[in-house]
Amino acid sequence: MESISAAEIDEYLTQLGTKAQIAKTVLRGLDTAQKNRALARAAEMLVQESERLLLANEKDYVRAKENDMAEGLLDRLKLTTARIEAMAEGLRQIATLPDPVGEVMESFDRPNGLHIEKVRVPMGVTGIIYEARPNVTADAFGLCFKTGNAVILKGGRDAFYSNQAITEVIREALEEEGIDKNAIQLMEKNDRAVTTAFMKLKEYVDVLIPRGGAGLIRSVVENSTVPVIETGTGNCHIYIDEAADLTKAVPIVINAKTQRIGVCNACESLLVHEKIAERILPALGKALLEKQVEIRGDETVREQIPEAQAATEEDYGREYLDLVLSVKTVGSLEEAIAHINKYNTGHSDAILTEDQARAQKFLREVDSACVYVNASTRFTDGFEFGFGAEIGISTQKLHARGPMGLRELTSYKYQVTGNGQVRP
Amino acid sequence: MESISAAEIDEYLTQLGTKAQIAKTVLRGLDTAQKNRALARAAEMLVQESERLLLANEKDYVRAKENDMAEGLLDRLKLTTARIEAMAEGLRQIATLPDPVGEVMESFDRPNGLHIEKVRVPMGVTGIIYEARPNVTADAFGLCFKTGNAVILKGGRDAFYSNQAITEVIREALEEEGIDKNAIQLMEKNDRAVTTAFMKLKEYVDVLIPRGGAGLIRSVVENSTVPVIETGTGNCHIYIDEAADLTKAVPIVINAKTQRIGVCNACESLLVHEKIAERILPALGKALLEKQVEIRGDETVREQIPEAQAATEEDYGREYLDLVLSVKTVGSLEEAIAHINKYNTGHSDAILTEDQARAQKFLREVDSACVYVNASTRFTDGFEFGFGAEIGISTQKLHARGPMGLRELTSYKYQVTGNGQVRP
Repeated sequence: MESISAAEIDEYLTQLGTKAQIAKTVLRGLDTAQKNRALARAAEMLVQESERLLLANEKDYVRAKENDMAEGLLDRLKLTTARIEAMAEGLRQIATLPDPVGEVMESFDRPNGLHIEKVRVPMGVTGIIYEARPNVTADAFGLCFKTGNAVILKGGRDAFYSNQAITEVIREALEEEGIDKNAIQLMEKNDRAVTTAFMKLKEYVDVLIPRGGAGLIRSVVENSTVPVIETGTGNCHIYIDEAADLTKAVPIVINAKTQRIGVCNACESLLVHEKIAERILPALGKALLEKQVEIRGDETVREQIPEAQAATEEDYGREYLDLVLSVKTVGSLEEAIAHINKYNTGHSDAILTEDQARAQKFLREVDSACVYVNASTRFTDGFEFGFGAEIGISTQKLHARGPMGLRELTSYKYQVTGNGQVRP
Repeated sequence: MESISAAEIDEYLTQLGTKAQIAKTVLRGLDTAQKNRALARAAEMLVQESERLLLANEKDYVRAKENDMAEGLLDRLKLTTARIEAMAEGLRQIATLPDPVGEVMESFDRPNGLHIEKVRVPMGVTGIIYEARPNVTADAFGLCFKTGNAVILKGGRDAFYSNQAITEVIREALEEEGIDKNAIQLMEKNDRAVTTAFMKLKEYVDVLIPRGGAGLIRSVVENSTVPVIETGTGNCHIYIDEAADLTKAVPIVINAKTQRIGVCNACESLLVHEKIAERILPALGKALLEKQVEIRGDETVREQIPEAQAATEEDYGREYLDLVLSVKTVGSLEEAIAHINKYNTGHSDAILTEDQARAQKFLREVDSACVYVNASTRFTDGFEFGFGAEIGISTQKLHARGPMGLRELTSYKYQVTGNGQVRP
């Protein structure tokens, strides 16, 4: 890797930031129809230029294979005609969603005659730092563009040529629509020092959203001076209460654990009230083992499921992202809640119970973005919530919590109209 | 100052954090009436214990005088019986405000039968880092307590004994009400290393709010890994448009500049359309000079106001917090907007004009928390906005922008109720 001096980094990022700031003011002036036309145009051109995208992706793919990238990651990296069509369809769908910008969220008059409106506005410039999935490039652009934000993307090195090609095609589409192409910019320097400096580009960037694994998110949180929305990691729990309907329990646990592994809303840990352990665990164990799930349990669990390994304390804090599940018996609802609040990541946790009072206590006391009664944690998702889009799942409490759609990419301002008022 | 080892810092902060986490769960379980009673009790006891507070404050005051603290700061530090009564009254007022916690912000059903409620919840643990005004101690407690947040306070060294006494009295009031006194904790170690470590106490603290000068805020933004809400600095502008009603202009400018200096919503910079410079500047200059305001202007300004100094580029970016005002003439509304967006701090900016279209353009394009037409920037304030309370003025776009009242100290969670739903 060529090394790059601090002065060069500064110059490069100042340029990126300045261009984004100029684009931001252009985007703020676009109406919804203009934005939707540009999204449709970008979708159309991504499909038209499939050949170019596939060629660029091939370069990434060959290099990744040479570098012995794991099979699962290689699959995420790979573009196909169908995946390009899906990317385009994503942009078309964003075009159909209501535009949150300009919404008057509140409006009130003060006794002194001042009229105050709280109006939804774009954030301004959004930075997205992500890993090796090229579809994020089009997706993040679509969501930011629809909400009037200029976006600066820093994708993973492994998808560099793919991201570059996608960005180029979208910029060409914007130019054809007469819109500042710097509404989307890709950071093309892959030096770690540049990325770290980007996290401190406070003067130009209004919010930074990392999308990826725990390591990436930690690095952004630790280094950034730009406000960050943390997304992602999910050590999600399901607690099967003594008052659970056991016919619902097995399908929900199997769904939450196995419908898709490797996602943040998959179940990683199961708690079972000791009063029903004997009744539910054998059936549950059988169903999990049929799905090739490795079970790590406490003593009671291992009595009921002989195939289970012994769980260590560390297991309860793990986000496996794999066919592994920790299982623990608890003596009470209170113990379940305390365990979850100790080990969870504030993402999604569920109780299975037919007792309303116990359900309400769980909903109130478990400190997570999404809390469930009698449903799979896999529903924590912008599409499943009906937002029509998703930029990520926030696990922090500031600004946005849980699935983030278009609205969560906006801020607001107060517009105050008077006729000469001064403060006494 | 005694020095303190990394291990001691870690142990001290872990203890503070753990206590706050326990208090947080207690606070979440209190109903509005319980919270209001405790606020009333704390108010009552602050007044009862005035003598104790005044004695503690005297220790701070004497030390501050010995250290040659500036007159203005000494005044902010000073407690009097009247100021203690005002602190208590602040708590009583917070008790009368509606409790935002538990509000169902949205509620919707999905086609698969899932019922989703978006419910307002406390943030959890709030950290407040502030400077030498002891009244902030009671104030920050009141706002956090009413919103169900445990608060950890780090006040300025200079007010240490005052803050300690206020905190003790409030903790005694909480104990009398049977509520975990760790709902309020004061960091009693004044070592800088402890404060820096506190900013990284991510495991225990959900949000950090710095209240103070630009240096304090910068330090928190640069060091914190806990999400921060930036408050404060205001380089506020007033632009007098060519279509301004000049009879409104002079009173508004005088009010925004001189009604109170040293506050973040005071006007620091004035822009005047060149077409009306000759008509407005002489009268305005006279009024400002009468109020002892030093004027720093461009050439046109100095022709009209001979007493004005020459403004440098640097003047336009200054938050004087003093009887100084930079004044510049501009050739167009567009130039005014561009100048403001370049030099402002995203706080409050006003246009004076009778032209609706020009007013709308200004409201839309100036990128600040609060934008005004024909009113003083001094109205950017939680009380003036009718929020009944204020924890600060946010100048960032994430989470909260502009005056922050009780609602801005809350987060939300999604409560999802099903009857066995799994994801297909």
